[in-house]
Amino acid sequence: MEQFELAHIQRLFEVTDRMLPYARRERSTRVLEGAVLGNLFFEPSTRSRLSFGAAFNRLGGYVRETTGFAFSSMAKGESVYDTSRVVSGYMDILVVRHPEEGAVAEFAAAINVPVINGGDGPGEHPTQALLDLYTLCRERGLHPGGLGGMRIAVVGDLRYGRTVHSLTKLLALESGLTFVCVAPEELQIPDELVLKLRQQGHTVELTDNLAEGIRDVDVIYATRVQQERLPQGSTVAANGDRFRIDAALYDKVCRPGTVLMHPLPRDSRGGASELADDLNSRPELAIFRQTDNGIPVRMALFALVLDVADQVADTDREARWYRPERFGVLDTRDILS
Amino acid sequence: MEQFELAHIQRLFEVTDRMLPYARRERSTRVLEGAVLGNLFFEPSTRSRLSFGAAFNRLGGYVRETTGFAFSSMAKGESVYDTSRVVSGYMDILVVRHPEEGAVAEFAAAINVPVINGGDGPGEHPTQALLDLYTLCRERGLHPGGLGGMRIAVVGDLRYGRTVHSLTKLLALESGLTFVCVAPEELQIPDELVLKLRQQGHTVELTDNLAEGIRDVDVIYATRVQQERLPQGSTVAANGDRFRIDAALYDKVCRPGTVLMHPLPRDSRGGASELADDLNSRPELAIFRQTDNGIPVRMALFALVLDVADQVADTDREARWYRPERFGVLDTRDILS
Amino acid sequence: MEQFELAHIQRLFEVTDRMLPYARRERSTRVLEGAVLGNLFFEPSTRSRLSFGAAFNRLGGYVRETTGFAFSSMAKGESVYDTSRVVSGYMDILVVRHPEEGAVAEFAAAINVPVINGGDGPGEHPTQALLDLYTLCRERGLHPGGLGGMRIAVVGDLRYGRTVHSLTKLLALESGLTFVCVAPEELQIPDELVLKLRQQGHTVELTDNLAEGIRDVDVIYATRVQQERLPQGSTVAANGDRFRIDAALYDKVCRPGTVLMHPLPRDSRGGASELADDLNSRPELAIFRQTDNGIPVRMALFALVLDVADQVADTDREARWYRPERFGVLDTRDILS
Repeated sequence: MEQFELAHIQRLFEVTDRMLPYARRERSTRVLEGAVLGNLFFEPSTRSRLSFGAAFNRLGGYVRETTGFAFSSMAKGESVYDTSRVVSGYMDILVVRHPEEGAVAEFAAAINVPVINGGDGPGEHPTQALLDLYTLCRERGLHPGGLGGMRIAVVGDLRYGRTVHSLTKLLALESGLTFVCVAPEELQIPDELVLKLRQQGHTVELTDNLAEGIRDVDVIYATRVQQERLPQGSTVAANGDRFRIDAALYDKVCRPGTVLMHPLPRDSRGGASELADDLNSRPELAIFRQTDNGIPVRMALFALVLDVADQVADTDREARWYRPERFGVLDTRDILS
Repeated sequence: MEQFELAHIQRLFEVTDRMLPYARRERSTRVLEGAVLGNLFFEPSTRSRLSFGAAFNRLGGYVRETTGFAFSSMAKGESVYDTSRVVSGYMDILVVRHPEEGAVAEFAAAINVPVINGGDGPGEHPTQALLDLYTLCRERGLHPGGLGGMRIAVVGDLRYGRTVHSLTKLLALESGLTFVCVAPEELQIPDELVLKLRQQGHTVELTDNLAEGIRDVDVIYATRVQQERLPQGSTVAANGDRFRIDAALYDKVCRPGTVLMHPLPRDSRGGASELADDLNSRPELAIFRQTDNGIPVRMALFALVLDVADQVADTDREARWYRPERFGVLDTRDILS
Repeated sequence: MEQFELAHIQRLFEVTDRMLPYARRERSTRVLEGAVLGNLFFEPSTRSRLSFGAAFNRLGGYVRETTGFAFSSMAKGESVYDTSRVVSGYMDILVVRHPEEGAVAEFAAAINVPVINGGDGPGEHPTQALLDLYTLCRERGLHPGGLGGMRIAVVGDLRYGRTVHSLTKLLALESGLTFVCVAPEELQIPDELVLKLRQQGHTVELTDNLAEGIRDVDVIYATRVQQERLPQGSTVAANGDRFRIDAALYDKVCRPGTVLMHPLPRDSRGGASELADDLNSRPELAIFRQTDNGIPVRMALFALVLDVADQVADTDREARWYRPERFGVLDTRDILS
């Protein structure tokens, strides 16, 4: 995440905008015809894996995958250096997901094909932060660099949740934001992050009162509290509902049009998630637009890294197939009559 | 299966016929270029997964897959609604296989991309029934709607086997069939199904005598008896051979040309399956033509659902590659000299 | 391996040479457009699976895969005959990897699509031997049939290692080679293999002295000693270092330019592998060129078996995308500025 400057984000999102018709299946391209992605998932993350793979396919490329914890050769004592060097000889580009912080960088160090970090444990998950920021910009009709003065509530586990850390690093490139950090004391945002944001000219407010925290903001970014991260005997578990936003609370305290975001998954066990299901039909609920945007953002990254962003239109044509406009179960009569 | 009317089947099989040269590798098409199938298998079914995937590839589309019981996000408490909504944003069409009846419909309910049921436990496995019926029609040189008067023996587990239930629902659209149901009493076809078939104008005969049952029919559809489905102390297990057809029995009692079908797998443990291996070279054994036909039937479904059935020829050309005409192990000299 | 004659190898390597620009991502082809490979791995071998799959993709074909020990249908008692017959109906060509010797041939026997052996336990791993020989030829600027007089040291487990057995079978087609077999007594090359090589006109020397064995050779082919293969109480384990080549030893005893090969993986546990890491930057270390060459060799095999080797150029064009020339971690600024 530290590699990105504002100009990079602007360039990336400009290309992302151009990817939308391909991601939405209105047009098709084969600009990456013959290219092969190695989609290497050393820890399970079904949706990230599918999203990276589908994004590469939409550019006309092929995808080869692994999903186990390690390569069979690693079980025989092979070093990361050898493994990454070998597999890079088969592929044009790699996505690597790994449970250990730094493992992706180690994988990338030995080789001369590009490596995209698909998440490295408590480290970074850069494409998540990028799709979050892209969504936030689109929801507000703004461009990166133009979010100045925005008030953003981040809610939930702000101590251990890597998505919030990565996103705030990106947002810090904007000027004069206000971050309202809403969390129980045990899970508040780390002091050094608060200090850094303030040094960068942003306002940071801390509270454990949900209704107060989300009252007067433009965007709420809610996150999941992972019970296994909490100290034993914590009062948070017992009071999980204190950080849960439902339609009644939203209507009572939020400014009209407040955007609702969440990195997903929402934890729906016990019938209640951080953003309650009764918000599902609200137009302000941007959570599925976030995941939808993962495709064009990842397409743009692939296209830029492989240097074909300006050639996409060369092989472009209207997609032949069906673009669904209805929700619900299709009836055979719609198709076969 | 209840969605299908006779006209739908006729339209589907007409398109299936047109898919044969592509399925047989005589021609290739890229009508679904750039389209992505999400092939989501929540229970293992290697061959169905390969068949759906290969069928989509043969139309020029890409396939992304899952094979575990659940998404990693589901393990974190994500609802089916969220999971299906998220993954549908990446894909143009989904095939969903799930061990629980109704789970596929639940998956489909939230989203606006087409979902094809790849089997939902004791529920339905519609493409199996469709490829069975397509095979039966082709073996007899008939078209759907033209099977009137045919005598069909269904043999084996008629109580719990979903393939028989789905197939009889489809066959019931024909007029004046005779179903000879050959099974031990514990596994006979459910009363309500018999009643329904009779109400629809069909004749249903029940017997536990295999030689009698298969004597004078056009088609035998044999199925596997799953020992784990039988009540404890059942006499069926001990007498498994009573429902086993081999070459001697076939030659002794069957009408010449009687078609032999089976949804597969045949259980070959103990050296004997429901259709014995000594029938393997008989031209009437249609079991591998059934699985072969799974490709064009599934191609036709994809093409119809994605509305490209009439555009396949637009990107059509002769396949460049080898079409094998010999059985057996290839010798290097055939290829490299 | 016994199928190959010298003329076959020459033809294969001639086509392999033509595949290099496609394997190196300088050009792309879609000569196998619409073809489907069934990449069936009944035992884990991540890198072989990725290599076969990527090679097929680079020719424009699709890949469907299995990675479990068996098909779900096999768990229900299905015979190998039925499984292979069914899956061959979906595919144009199969790669089969299996832990049991002979299983691949059994799989191939029933069907009429080509089957490539991806390794069958203690049996053969033919494409490994072919890529080894191709690399050896390229390193020396020679063609098959022209290696006469070469001195080759094979080091490590020469008794159980199938790669050495397969490679020596191929090399035996050359004339007048000298094989220096360097191994502890328990792991020396089988007597019958020595006998056969001598009958074919080659010189075979046996030694357990590493420094002596590698002193005056053109090529060293080192292999991994699998501890689990050793008899209990063996002295080899305790003296593993006796068969380890590092930079100091190489510089002290080897002829300048001696090529270093290894089938990989190197076992790096305990900080030392058969070819030490301090050799990683030496130009004579050919181990990663071996795995890189796996792609064009497998492409050539696919193209020859499917009879498109002479048509590759018909659909040929310059690849659009990035060809990396630098090692190391890419900086975002290189891409996004």
